[in-house]
Amino acid sequence: MIGVAVVGYGYWGPNLVRNLAEVPGARLVSVCDMRKERLAAVQSRYPAVEVTDDFQALLSDPRVDAVAIATPVSTHFRLAMSALMAGKHVLVEKPMASSAEEARRLVDEAARRKLVLAVDHTFIHTGAVRKMRELVENGLGDVYYYDSVRVNLGLFQHDVSVIWDLAVHDLSIMDHVLPMKPVAVSATGVSHVAGEPENIAYLNLFFDNATIAHIHVNWLAPVKVRRTLIGGSSKMIVYDDLEPSEKIKVYDKGITLNGNPKANGEKVYQMLVGYRTGDMWAPQLDMAEALGVELRQFVDCVEKGGTPIADGHAGLRVVRILEAASQSLAQRGRVIELEAARRIA
Amino acid sequence: MIGVAVVGYGYWGPNLVRNLAEVPGARLVSVCDMRKERLAAVQSRYPAVEVTDDFQALLSDPRVDAVAIATPVSTHFRLAMSALMAGKHVLVEKPMASSAEEARRLVDEAARRKLVLAVDHTFIHTGAVRKMRELVENGLGDVYYYDSVRVNLGLFQHDVSVIWDLAVHDLSIMDHVLPMKPVAVSATGVSHVAGEPENIAYLNLFFDNATIAHIHVNWLAPVKVRRTLIGGSSKMIVYDDLEPSEKIKVYDKGITLNGNPKANGEKVYQMLVGYRTGDMWAPQLDMAEALGVELRQFVDCVEKGGTPIADGHAGLRVVRILEAASQSLAQRGRVIELEAARRIA
Amino acid sequence: MIGVAVVGYGYWGPNLVRNLAEVPGARLVSVCDMRKERLAAVQSRYPAVEVTDDFQALLSDPRVDAVAIATPVSTHFRLAMSALMAGKHVLVEKPMASSAEEARRLVDEAARRKLVLAVDHTFIHTGAVRKMRELVENGLGDVYYYDSVRVNLGLFQHDVSVIWDLAVHDLSIMDHVLPMKPVAVSATGVSHVAGEPENIAYLNLFFDNATIAHIHVNWLAPVKVRRTLIGGSSKMIVYDDLEPSEKIKVYDKGITLNGNPKANGEKVYQMLVGYRTGDMWAPQLDMAEALGVELRQFVDCVEKGGTPIADGHAGLRVVRILEAASQSLAQRGRVIELEAARRIA
Amino acid sequence: MIGVAVVGYGYWGPNLVRNLAEVPGARLVSVCDMRKERLAAVQSRYPAVEVTDDFQALLSDPRVDAVAIATPVSTHFRLAMSALMAGKHVLVEKPMASSAEEARRLVDEAARRKLVLAVDHTFIHTGAVRKMRELVENGLGDVYYYDSVRVNLGLFQHDVSVIWDLAVHDLSIMDHVLPMKPVAVSATGVSHVAGEPENIAYLNLFFDNATIAHIHVNWLAPVKVRRTLIGGSSKMIVYDDLEPSEKIKVYDKGITLNGNPKANGEKVYQMLVGYRTGDMWAPQLDMAEALGVELRQFVDCVEKGGTPIADGHAGLRVVRILEAASQSLAQRGRVIELEAARRIA
Repeated sequence: MIGVAVVGYGYWGPNLVRNLAEVPGARLVSVCDMRKERLAAVQSRYPAVEVTDDFQALLSDPRVDAVAIATPVSTHFRLAMSALMAGKHVLVEKPMASSAEEARRLVDEAARRKLVLAVDHTFIHTGAVRKMRELVENGLGDVYYYDSVRVNLGLFQHDVSVIWDLAVHDLSIMDHVLPMKPVAVSATGVSHVAGEPENIAYLNLFFDNATIAHIHVNWLAPVKVRRTLIGGSSKMIVYDDLEPSEKIKVYDKGITLNGNPKANGEKVYQMLVGYRTGDMWAPQLDMAEALGVELRQFVDCVEKGGTPIADGHAGLRVVRILEAASQSLAQRGRVIELEAARRIA
Repeated sequence: MIGVAVVGYGYWGPNLVRNLAEVPGARLVSVCDMRKERLAAVQSRYPAVEVTDDFQALLSDPRVDAVAIATPVSTHFRLAMSALMAGKHVLVEKPMASSAEEARRLVDEAARRKLVLAVDHTFIHTGAVRKMRELVENGLGDVYYYDSVRVNLGLFQHDVSVIWDLAVHDLSIMDHVLPMKPVAVSATGVSHVAGEPENIAYLNLFFDNATIAHIHVNWLAPVKVRRTLIGGSSKMIVYDDLEPSEKIKVYDKGITLNGNPKANGEKVYQMLVGYRTGDMWAPQLDMAEALGVELRQFVDCVEKGGTPIADGHAGLRVVRILEAASQSLAQRGRVIELEAARRIA
Repeated sequence: MIGVAVVGYGYWGPNLVRNLAEVPGARLVSVCDMRKERLAAVQSRYPAVEVTDDFQALLSDPRVDAVAIATPVSTHFRLAMSALMAGKHVLVEKPMASSAEEARRLVDEAARRKLVLAVDHTFIHTGAVRKMRELVENGLGDVYYYDSVRVNLGLFQHDVSVIWDLAVHDLSIMDHVLPMKPVAVSATGVSHVAGEPENIAYLNLFFDNATIAHIHVNWLAPVKVRRTLIGGSSKMIVYDDLEPSEKIKVYDKGITLNGNPKANGEKVYQMLVGYRTGDMWAPQLDMAEALGVELRQFVDCVEKGGTPIADGHAGLRVVRILEAASQSLAQRGRVIELEAARRIA
Repeated sequence: MIGVAVVGYGYWGPNLVRNLAEVPGARLVSVCDMRKERLAAVQSRYPAVEVTDDFQALLSDPRVDAVAIATPVSTHFRLAMSALMAGKHVLVEKPMASSAEEARRLVDEAARRKLVLAVDHTFIHTGAVRKMRELVENGLGDVYYYDSVRVNLGLFQHDVSVIWDLAVHDLSIMDHVLPMKPVAVSATGVSHVAGEPENIAYLNLFFDNATIAHIHVNWLAPVKVRRTLIGGSSKMIVYDDLEPSEKIKVYDKGITLNGNPKANGEKVYQMLVGYRTGDMWAPQLDMAEALGVELRQFVDCVEKGGTPIADGHAGLRVVRILEAASQSLAQRGRVIELEAARRIA
């Protein structure tokens, strides 16, 4: 039985608590938050769970094997590092840290102490994203592009830009679904509220080959869109997360290339493009709640010593891109190389 | 009665001919094409119309007051310039020319000879785009962003990239709808067919203020999308050209900003963002065929000496951006300034 | 402070309990169910609420002013009647009873004792349905038709047909939205599982005038549809309950009739039909949870002696139609008159 | 080479003429219409085609082997019968005649003279409907229901009700797609324009087994809907004719029935219903123009003596249902048996 404590009972913490209650092999020992009224909410709903506002006490509690952190981003590093140093396994809300440097230090610390460090990239545990990964591995062919739109009239954040708030989802999904990693990033965007972070942004991700990725995030859109296109040489995918049941559609569409050797001086190969339009197919998806799947896996890794699919390295890769994108954004889209991230991954 | 000749009877020419037949005040004198079988098609359908493969003969025909050019882009400059020099008014297919230099020379020649030079930016004559312009002028408030997606599984061109083929539509619409003009452009994209032009591209357009514009064009998408979002401080617009009837939706949604002066040292003004969600409204649109509206206007300008809403300057502004975007594309998104275009416009 | 007891903690009871907890002026005294494990669920979630499996004890509890009944339909009459006879105000799940006779007896008993009898027609408390009623009262003109489709792959019931399970929603909405009441009903349908109730049905409702209503319900559809069309002489409404935000769309469309008196023998008036297509408008809707609105109203009526908008008469009218539709269904659509219901309403 | 004459050049005739021009093996000899301006339109567009307003002359013209009739319904019988009696093969617009009696006489006459009698049920030649027939034959399992909605703001007809105008499409599609034929029909509907035919109607079709069919047609709907659901024991189909590319979606969804023998007196078999939700699949469809496919087949049957898939019997079956539905409509949905039609088919 793995003892778990949840730190932070704001927006996301209640989901962690609710799901942890259902994970076999886990025992929710305690919930920690600074605000009394939130702890009261825990107690009224889960009378059997202890509550505390003393994070240090948690760390010295031998019943606590692992800590799940759902606090503001700026506190992730300090809390996660303290927990690791106290010998606790850690699951930390995304983005894993405020900077690549912080993320790297968490990865190193966890490795040194042989502790599980997981990042809560929730979406990669959905049936839809798992199915996309399967399809990309087997059936899509070469990946031509990855294009994602995530816009709506959303809560303007005061501490982070829309990139850290929304693109983090796309980056974590893309990190999981694509077999290759980006080598450079550029981003443009603006803020429409003086003195506040950017509320609309466009990210370009460059790869070693002809793959291209693009992410559009916007807090100020009149309609909600959650749509990703993945183009491959054999198949193409549309992932629409707002569809109630057919979230993933696979199109047997694309181009066919015929190389015709020619002896003329202009081109050695005159390419002919043909078009292929076939059936569309929407596979049945596992509808299990993603956070439950993720917590089961985390607890299992803690128990048996495995590596979660969204480990500290995944968290670091995503933070590295967020950081580079922010740098690029400040320079009207200058391309920022991501070598460091590649080396680590 | 204005005598008109149509040059080029390939993909678009038949639409010009069909619509010209209905324009009061215009007489279709002749259709010119290099291919005999196309001329035969004209004759079988319009027995009263003359056909010719001799462009020079047209230019010396006194019955011809104006020439409508619908030939490949690379020939636009040469044909349009010859027509202007022969004293003919000219309507030329979009993009107006292959380079800003060519476009500028056409503008200058038309001005010198006091001839009408129009570019066939068809979309701006649709009821939908005209309504958007009205709304932007009156009701939208400050323009925050312009975001357009134009993707499908389309015919790969061998001579021009997807920017010249598809983004030209968005640029001409944006040129008509927005009151301000972009000052710089950047673009990224790739080709998935070796040796061929880019088939997917993303354009960023920068303005003198906090407005941002973005265009996504793609010949290799599994689904067809034609959607533009325009965000304003008072209203927001969704323009979906694939909707059969409600192409324009106006949302009374957005943010409200409250400046609260504070005396603390960190921020002089702490902005508070409020959210406003009100009704949605889809105005009834004029469904008249855009090309008919445009040709009526062109003939009217020739007759009475007016300036068409898509004149040579509009054609030049769009070509200037296409050219700059192509330059940027070749440099992984380097920002290209558009001062020259601004000076002219 | 009104003391309320909830009877039945199966599918719907938990929603009653959760919402009652938020109603000002109400105190949830007790939850009653026959199954121990359900009572345990109440206790773990709401430690302050009493639980019991003794319905009679509730009725003699002076702290209980009102009873909310969410048990199977076949038990509604017995439980509600007992509660009324014990002097309790009653809110009963829809359909209010198994037969018009039962429903009528409940109405009479409540009237005799001057107790509030309400039926839980939840949908009529949604922002969407309230807006439709407003529009029908003011703006729609004469009601031409009411057409509703409510289909999906749903849970096959063993005790009631799809009419009692799904059409009850449409009938209660229609009862609330339309100013006139139907005078006759016919229904067709079949069962695809031998020995089980009908899983697909079509209802026709006839009125005293040219209004017509039709309801299509189906447990065996591959897609979920929740769509109602209301056609009026001035406006038309589309109500799509699956739309996340624009559930109600109002179309300024229709026909215009011009009476041209003619002296010929065939027709005194030759009607000319004109077509009108104008704007579409999606009003912003109140998004408050319907059940909360309803419970506030119920408690308010109990406290101040008012009549809820879905009172016993509304419950009876709906049951009368369900009963007649079932009779018609058994006779391949024979028209069943509803005079009795009209007299009462 | 089969010589064909087209009779009637109003709404549909031009489509027949345009498609006939492309049919190998056919020669369009003449177009006949009573109005001079329509004949002038034919001549300006097809200078090589003869025109006439003399139907009798056509019938005595030995170059004319077959006649395609696209005139108002009330004239179908007279024109088609004359043509058959003159020894011409006939293709007649739908509905084939104004009454079942007329339709039957055409069938008999064609049989007696061994002439091809075809009815222009255009939709059954679309890729979508042909695919549905394939799926119903192979894969759908037992047919549980057929449900179709065909509504829009349409042209009000003065001579026929919405049933003869719109439901004729659904009936001809259903006749082609389903392996079994209906045995009875009922219909309800109303007219909202005094003295005019019904503009909204609902049809029920009964079969010898548990299959049920339903058709909703409406000229006064604010939105256009063209959607058919076919429920089977193994698969279910959604046919949405307004979808630009995925018109047919096949759902691997449904119920599974398990018979559990029980010894109690109430039911010998207690059925258990299970639910199955699997993949969705949208097959690629043949996009060839239906009318072209149909005309090729008609000309081929004339040449080689075959039977078209929409022959006179199909035309008669559809007219028989239209007639019975009209009778039922006048009697508020009384069920009308279709024995006669069954005997013939």
